[in-house]
Amino acid sequence: MIKSYIRDNEPRLLENLFSLIRIPSISALPEHHDDMLKCADRWKELLLAAGADRAEVMPSDGNPLVYAEKLIPGADKTILIYGHYDVMPVEPLELWKSDPFKPEVRDEHIWARGADDDKGQSFIQYAAFEFLVKHNLLRHNVKFILEGEEEIGSPSLETFLAQHRELLKSDIILVSDTSMLAADLPSLTTGLRGIAYWDVEVTGPNHDLHSGHFGGAVANPINVLCEMIAKMTDADGRITIPHFYDDVEELPDAERKMIASIPFDEEKYKRALDVEELRGEKGYSTIERNSCRPSFDVCGIWGGHIGEGSKTVLPSKAYAKLSCRLVPHQDYNKINELFAQYFQSLAPKSVKVKITFSHGGHGYVCPISLPAYKAAEQGFEQAFGKRPLAARRGGSIPIISVFEKVLGVKTILMGFGLESNAIHSPNENFSLDIFRKGIEAVVGFHEAYDQL
Amino acid sequence: MIKSYIRDNEPRLLENLFSLIRIPSISALPEHHDDMLKCADRWKELLLAAGADRAEVMPSDGNPLVYAEKLIPGADKTILIYGHYDVMPVEPLELWKSDPFKPEVRDEHIWARGADDDKGQSFIQYAAFEFLVKHNLLRHNVKFILEGEEEIGSPSLETFLAQHRELLKSDIILVSDTSMLAADLPSLTTGLRGIAYWDVEVTGPNHDLHSGHFGGAVANPINVLCEMIAKMTDADGRITIPHFYDDVEELPDAERKMIASIPFDEEKYKRALDVEELRGEKGYSTIERNSCRPSFDVCGIWGGHIGEGSKTVLPSKAYAKLSCRLVPHQDYNKINELFAQYFQSLAPKSVKVKITFSHGGHGYVCPISLPAYKAAEQGFEQAFGKRPLAARRGGSIPIISVFEKVLGVKTILMGFGLESNAIHSPNENFSLDIFRKGIEAVVGFHEAYDQL
Repeated sequence: MIKSYIRDNEPRLLENLFSLIRIPSISALPEHHDDMLKCADRWKELLLAAGADRAEVMPSDGNPLVYAEKLIPGADKTILIYGHYDVMPVEPLELWKSDPFKPEVRDEHIWARGADDDKGQSFIQYAAFEFLVKHNLLRHNVKFILEGEEEIGSPSLETFLAQHRELLKSDIILVSDTSMLAADLPSLTTGLRGIAYWDVEVTGPNHDLHSGHFGGAVANPINVLCEMIAKMTDADGRITIPHFYDDVEELPDAERKMIASIPFDEEKYKRALDVEELRGEKGYSTIERNSCRPSFDVCGIWGGHIGEGSKTVLPSKAYAKLSCRLVPHQDYNKINELFAQYFQSLAPKSVKVKITFSHGGHGYVCPISLPAYKAAEQGFEQAFGKRPLAARRGGSIPIISVFEKVLGVKTILMGFGLESNAIHSPNENFSLDIFRKGIEAVVGFHEAYDQL
Repeated sequence: MIKSYIRDNEPRLLENLFSLIRIPSISALPEHHDDMLKCADRWKELLLAAGADRAEVMPSDGNPLVYAEKLIPGADKTILIYGHYDVMPVEPLELWKSDPFKPEVRDEHIWARGADDDKGQSFIQYAAFEFLVKHNLLRHNVKFILEGEEEIGSPSLETFLAQHRELLKSDIILVSDTSMLAADLPSLTTGLRGIAYWDVEVTGPNHDLHSGHFGGAVANPINVLCEMIAKMTDADGRITIPHFYDDVEELPDAERKMIASIPFDEEKYKRALDVEELRGEKGYSTIERNSCRPSFDVCGIWGGHIGEGSKTVLPSKAYAKLSCRLVPHQDYNKINELFAQYFQSLAPKSVKVKITFSHGGHGYVCPISLPAYKAAEQGFEQAFGKRPLAARRGGSIPIISVFEKVLGVKTILMGFGLESNAIHSPNENFSLDIFRKGIEAVVGFHEAYDQL
């Protein structure tokens, strides 16, 4: 029944999704403030149209959240569905094959910023909800909460959750914002990495200098910043911050075996990225490195003369955005303190270093013994024709651990993305086939959940 | 006589200088192409007005050059005056206290891009020439050549010189484009450093990746670029390129003693730059390091997410502008080969590195036994009341060695800048007092030159 519903309603469903995508709700850029409000309003309209009893845009300390609910008389269980309506910046724009905010269907894929992360995925939850309401199939309460600051680290969410504990009361949280191992390897995410993110500024001389008159005599803050960054990892690819690994648990052999059994074609992976070699911590496989081990990445760097031409300058300042992916049990607050102390200690006296903690999030582990996890397995099996693998993933959704801390509720990560979807990158896309299967899987989840 | 001439004519002289400064002739930025032509035309007008017999804007492979001459019947000597009418970019614009292209006089200084480098300094030569012509005091021929590509490495000058050897025939070349040790320490520049400048591009994966999904598994080109840059110098501040120092001559003890005798207040120098410590090659004094020893500076770096916000990206590319200051006898072509081979060798297989040689220039040494050098000493002594010191400087004017190579003529570096003039930086400025003394010193030079 759900298959024919999707077929019959697809043009309308896509048009509704596109109406969300067309709003450039980039939370990182202050000039898009009005778009955040527009996007929240559009979600409210859609949720009411789908059959929510109530939907409203609720203020927070930052961008507002959208709350909606459908309460079923006599129901004793409540599912809280979380998604986010904000998206990442789109630069470099010249690499996009079509306008990131004019969604297009080409080659059976949707192409746009947010096609996957997280408008497309949230919309899968939405479409399944619409189907269940219209056909009177819901046997439990459903609540939606959509936030507008996920891509900037959800600075206002924790306070919001604490203020609305009663409203958000639920038995399980359902989130579609992760990806599967591959289109033919459906999987549920059972672990996420945490994150800590910093802005650093290195100041040498108090103004830009002529590199001829001063070069060799005065510390160049770019040279120094590069040296400091280089010292952050050792020859084995391990992070050198003292005590960084104190709370990192070694992977149990059983889990390493499970990971090793995941079909993974390293040559294909390298070809897709066009790299001759991969790189990371010694002693761990590629999948272990990008999902179960911490990492250190420079997400941005700038200083001196940028772009065309050849200015001979010894600049006053150099900047970088640094981040560590963390694993469960690593506390980002503790890591922040360790990092700040260590990074500062790497600086010679010839420069001044300013470190600003931007945001952090804890990792997460979902026990596969939860009834809701089993319901998700059944939903996936129904839609994809095979039992999903349980996989830890490398991304961070800091709010998942916040849900657990503030609301005391576990989350099922029922994500339908693929690595090829290019989220956070130019030409983000989403497969229509998986979009359809996703809706089917979520409907299957709701049905199975009632029977457990 | 020259003192009263300057006093009486200063408003007109400054207005003429300002008419040059107001044209934003930034050679590094293609959008200023028309300004280059405007600035060349303005120089031509001014030179004719000052009494040149002939002045014209002459084409080259790049921006045109301005040529002018005043031939004195019966004269057997010719002085060729070189200057440049192009200026450096002005970013970061927000640090300027007044518009870089709206020259202002405040606190007895001219404030503007080009106030010193090199519109202000070239204009000193111009004003002295005007005075000598008007008062019929010239006893030798004077030729002017003003180029529009000095700040981008003079790519067209060598060909131009080779094509116009006869026109540019001269006995000595006079250049005001260097600086003095201090306002109360007049000096003539007897040595310059060479330069080699590169653009490098490091490519990791073929598109920007999500740092959560790939961080730890795939080489981040920014991390790698930082590591490569860090390896370019060792713990003693020496450049690690193999054979880099092969042609670097150790400073003779006599010269080190002379340098050590230059009054230099290191505490004041650090205070002016607001740095707690200086930094550079071990075993050499600050003045030695910034004038007689090679250096390695990153002049620009960029990659990933720049500016506001906190994008969690593992970028595809990272870029840097790298430069080495060289000393006399180091051949920038040889250094370029050594650098390219070494830098490439620093790259792990997980990235691709593209190195583009941007430009280079040889160092220069001026013998203090030249008659023209002695004439310059006399001019300085007349204007500043003390004999100028002979000092090697850290900047590069690659064309000085090109003059010697192509025209076979030595250059006297009669520069009037000060480090506090902030050339290539925001708030470039030039002292009116030194501007006046400079004109007087150049008039003194011309007069002394005829008597030698």
